[in-house]
Amino acid sequence: MSLPSDPHGACGEGAHGASPDGASPDGASPADASCAIAPSAGASTAPGEGLLRSDWLDAVRWDRDGLVPAIAQDALSQRILMVAWMNREALQETAVTGRAVYFSRSRGRLWRKGEESGHVQRVRELRLDCDADVILLQVEQGGGIACHTGRQSCFFHRLQDGRWTITDPVIRDPEDIYK
Amino acid sequence: MSLPSDPHGACGEGAHGASPDGASPDGASPADASCAIAPSAGASTAPGEGLLRSDWLDAVRWDRDGLVPAIAQDALSQRILMVAWMNREALQETAVTGRAVYFSRSRGRLWRKGEESGHVQRVRELRLDCDADVILLQVEQGGGIACHTGRQSCFFHRLQDGRWTITDPVIRDPEDIYK
Repeated sequence: MSLPSDPHGACGEGAHGASPDGASPDGASPADASCAIAPSAGASTAPGEGLLRSDWLDAVRWDRDGLVPAIAQDALSQRILMVAWMNREALQETAVTGRAVYFSRSRGRLWRKGEESGHVQRVRELRLDCDADVILLQVEQGGGIACHTGRQSCFFHRLQDGRWTITDPVIRDPEDIYK
Repeated sequence: MSLPSDPHGACGEGAHGASPDGASPDGASPADASCAIAPSAGASTAPGEGLLRSDWLDAVRWDRDGLVPAIAQDALSQRILMVAWMNREALQETAVTGRAVYFSRSRGRLWRKGEESGHVQRVRELRLDCDADVILLQVEQGGGIACHTGRQSCFFHRLQDGRWTITDPVIRDPEDIYK
């Protein structure tokens, strides 16, 4: 319960009805959490110690599978690199180590980005959205390649004239990356 | 089945095993779709006519609820504004009209962004990721406000010292927006 009070009184959806038109109107808002009192500001903690507490993790609205989507955005180019999923453990390890860790649904285990490819993501910043159910990471992308196809970004298909058209070049052959 | 062939032979995960380290290793890849032959390039179609076909919608990997996450990114600042959900109808209407339409899970109906707030999103570009299960929109954000709290972006909580800290100002009081 570490989402801080909103000085404008507008945290969550409670301030202006159940379903305003505004992102995001889906599901229950984190009003209960976001308007809760934050841990006492005067508490003495060593740097990083707060990350080992659980209240900031409790504030996240994990889905029925215990996951939330996590968006990796390139800290330099601001391009969206990829979207993956995090569970509680992945998010905590990401915050503590400064290296992006996701949860692979297909493999059913933590996935430390770059563990095979070497394309590690160094995390500059972690953000949470107003519904507390999406994480945004600002990352420095190792190798400049986030996608398993050898491209910078996974979003290399653009809709053009009713077709998903590939717009981005392969920077490195995946056969070289995953050998 | 309109994802085009990848000239690099790397579309989907099939090219280099079932679970490479690279985004996104989750679930089945769209290899079947993305490597399929696109509609014949020489077909004569009026501008926009392709959007009324269904093959580009069939290429999207809708989840068990018939939805996919959709990220709205500000076309000017490149800031991530919000994440919502789209069903098939929402995505098609978005593409055809050029105005962002989402599916509200809480209300169980289409949600034409801005229908109450006036904060319409004009869509400059639609992208699909390599797993064909996330949509990325480049938008011009009406009013410069995407969030129902009256802020530019829904990602106004930043993790600092083990706390989600509000970093962004309220641009307009929600009481004024939703009256």
